[in-house]
Amino acid sequence: MPVITLLTDFGLVDPYVGEMKAVLLDGAPGTAVVDLTHGVQPGNVREGAWLLFRSWDRFPPGSCHLAVVDPGVGGARRPIAALAGGHAFVGPDNGLLMAAIDAAHAGASDPLSGGPEIREITVREIDRPRRGTTFDGRDLFAPTAARLAAGRPLTEVGPEVHDPVRIEPFAPRSCPGGWEVEIVRIDRFGNLITTVTEEFLRETFGEDWRLIGARIGDRVVRGVRIAYEDVEPGELLLSIGGGGTLEISASRASACRRLGVSPGEAAVVTGPRNDSREGDREPTSPGGSVFRDRREEDS
Amino acid sequence: MPVITLLTDFGLVDPYVGEMKAVLLDGAPGTAVVDLTHGVQPGNVREGAWLLFRSWDRFPPGSCHLAVVDPGVGGARRPIAALAGGHAFVGPDNGLLMAAIDAAHAGASDPLSGGPEIREITVREIDRPRRGTTFDGRDLFAPTAARLAAGRPLTEVGPEVHDPVRIEPFAPRSCPGGWEVEIVRIDRFGNLITTVTEEFLRETFGEDWRLIGARIGDRVVRGVRIAYEDVEPGELLLSIGGGGTLEISASRASACRRLGVSPGEAAVVTGPRNDSREGDREPTSPGGSVFRDRREEDS
Amino acid sequence: MPVITLLTDFGLVDPYVGEMKAVLLDGAPGTAVVDLTHGVQPGNVREGAWLLFRSWDRFPPGSCHLAVVDPGVGGARRPIAALAGGHAFVGPDNGLLMAAIDAAHAGASDPLSGGPEIREITVREIDRPRRGTTFDGRDLFAPTAARLAAGRPLTEVGPEVHDPVRIEPFAPRSCPGGWEVEIVRIDRFGNLITTVTEEFLRETFGEDWRLIGARIGDRVVRGVRIAYEDVEPGELLLSIGGGGTLEISASRASACRRLGVSPGEAAVVTGPRNDSREGDREPTSPGGSVFRDRREEDS
Repeated sequence: MPVITLLTDFGLVDPYVGEMKAVLLDGAPGTAVVDLTHGVQPGNVREGAWLLFRSWDRFPPGSCHLAVVDPGVGGARRPIAALAGGHAFVGPDNGLLMAAIDAAHAGASDPLSGGPEIREITVREIDRPRRGTTFDGRDLFAPTAARLAAGRPLTEVGPEVHDPVRIEPFAPRSCPGGWEVEIVRIDRFGNLITTVTEEFLRETFGEDWRLIGARIGDRVVRGVRIAYEDVEPGELLLSIGGGGTLEISASRASACRRLGVSPGEAAVVTGPRNDSREGDREPTSPGGSVFRDRREEDS
Repeated sequence: MPVITLLTDFGLVDPYVGEMKAVLLDGAPGTAVVDLTHGVQPGNVREGAWLLFRSWDRFPPGSCHLAVVDPGVGGARRPIAALAGGHAFVGPDNGLLMAAIDAAHAGASDPLSGGPEIREITVREIDRPRRGTTFDGRDLFAPTAARLAAGRPLTEVGPEVHDPVRIEPFAPRSCPGGWEVEIVRIDRFGNLITTVTEEFLRETFGEDWRLIGARIGDRVVRGVRIAYEDVEPGELLLSIGGGGTLEISASRASACRRLGVSPGEAAVVTGPRNDSREGDREPTSPGGSVFRDRREEDS
Repeated sequence: MPVITLLTDFGLVDPYVGEMKAVLLDGAPGTAVVDLTHGVQPGNVREGAWLLFRSWDRFPPGSCHLAVVDPGVGGARRPIAALAGGHAFVGPDNGLLMAAIDAAHAGASDPLSGGPEIREITVREIDRPRRGTTFDGRDLFAPTAARLAAGRPLTEVGPEVHDPVRIEPFAPRSCPGGWEVEIVRIDRFGNLITTVTEEFLRETFGEDWRLIGARIGDRVVRGVRIAYEDVEPGELLLSIGGGGTLEISASRASACRRLGVSPGEAAVVTGPRNDSREGDREPTSPGGSVFRDRREEDS
């Protein structure tokens, strides 16, 4: 049974997601439709791209990822569908899909054999009458995703696209004293989620990588912890979150509320020995379980 | 595999929807349960009726629509179930279902053969103990919907109802200078969704229908656009939304916030040549893609 | 087809629930995954325990209940899985599961044969690479739940636990003039949901139990009603809610807003004849349908 995932900025108070599911279940009966999230900030393509990028590979090969954050609906932006690394992707050509598509392609068995296959959706076969001009999620993307999930070939949807729109990469940028990293998302718990991966930190800072600091405004938080309770309730800490990237959190509290940060702002990651700007109550040398790496214990 | 849709004012922070699904999956295993929305304003029967009315026919025939916006639960209002146009409907007899039922009946192959079949739910066969007196959604409507989805005949639920409660129709009303139309719903994006259909506008205003204006308070917005980006960011525009009715929106912004409107208020639709009250910065003669009809392009 | 239920404090704006479902569908294809709720207040173990306790037995035997309200994630608290009364339970050993497990065990066919079987999860078999250290919901609990739902025996997950963490029971406490009962939850409608069951009220107050009062601050509400509309719009009332416990509500209004109560506060239930503190406009002798018991009518 194939899986179709949904990621939109539609929220759940309106019937928009339900109407998309009507089309999906009609076109691909028996499909498991999973809501990845519908809580992308309205029109925030970059945030949506990040969320798809972090989550797509949790699903088994053969999954179809339908993503709609689409302020240009009805206008000139192209609708696209793609295959990469055994996963299908459907949505607007505004950068929303490409970070995930590029990652899926890079992880494929033979990524050197050419780019991922991306096609513009030009063939429309919709059973029931289209209404309005501003709901391509239901009227264009969902029928396409259902077709792909039902096993129809990608070549049927339309001609190849060789110049898909890409957004600015999520990579950290070198800056005086460290690396500037983007706070791309703030989650329900008030965790500030950055785009810098554990792998980057390990490669950049070596075996002491867990002693790094992160500066937000004039506050520095130091030491990548394993558990929130490794610091006192209310204190700030660093951790590697479920997306595999650095997060700035507060134990049993909201780091967002404590630091007054908004999505899109930046933090500066400083190395283990760059202690000069320390200005927080966090210990300069983290104790407790900071050095414990549960991933090694698990093996 | 039949589909059961759910529409309630229960929200998603409570376990109420989950408990209804427990009953549905128990009574009709293998059914696909689709959340249409649980974001109806608490107790707002009219808003719920509108949302069901706009969405029910997106689902395939054989679907069962379970809707619960039920401030009279436990009291004298009748619980009903109905068949119309090949769809089943279950919920309270307070007007919530009838706009959809009447539309389903009108669209049926032989609507002249008599009204839709509506029955009061009097037979209760619930496997597990009922708790409390205020959760008919779980204890009465869900078991009935599961029975119908599992193929049991409607006649089993109880006696026929010939006088179901109906709400005021969603039709526009003639007024000095135009047509008064209801803003029945404001969605997540701040779009003001009216009840006047594209069909009505085409029939009333003829081929120039896209040049109509809509007056909200002392603001007039003119020109029915194809895409939000047909106007500058922040500007107001008209469009035909995914429900097939006129919407007042702002490009990459919230029309609700710009205009300060609440659900239930009215707009006045004025004809293509009635330009006298024009008071907004919107162009009197809309340009760009206003005249492009993508539905014709698609055929 | 087994059912896996999900109860978390993750909310729905983040992709956390979707990523858990990816793991569940991968490990137990064909399973029906039902969201009980993701709206537990962040980190509020007691509220989560209550919601699981009230809802688990709505699902058929063989269901697996996966619950994650887990401020201690990554730290010393044990991850556990249990079997009781034909249901499986998976989550952190912080009290979240035990009220439901104890109830499931007490309701089992032979509860005297020993306690429920509870095991610590020490065997980890996760197909794809773990990311971060703070998402056991996806990386540890979901794979375990999928294994159990797919029919693997509980003994495989790890060694038995004989001292699970339990929270304070939800039972009422005797106090001067009545019983102190906890307002454990306030729902979307502003209903104040207490932990005192109809059974307790019947046993304690006898056949006149519907004439009890409930005091919140200096307000007394008297008379357990059948329907919200048994009182005038805006008036306070008592009822037995869908969880089988006493609720304090307002007809077509929010009791929470009228009374200014927060979850965790207490109400005092007073007997039918203890009228001395009456201070509200509610009638001292409830009329109308208060004496009507629809559960008897139904049989």
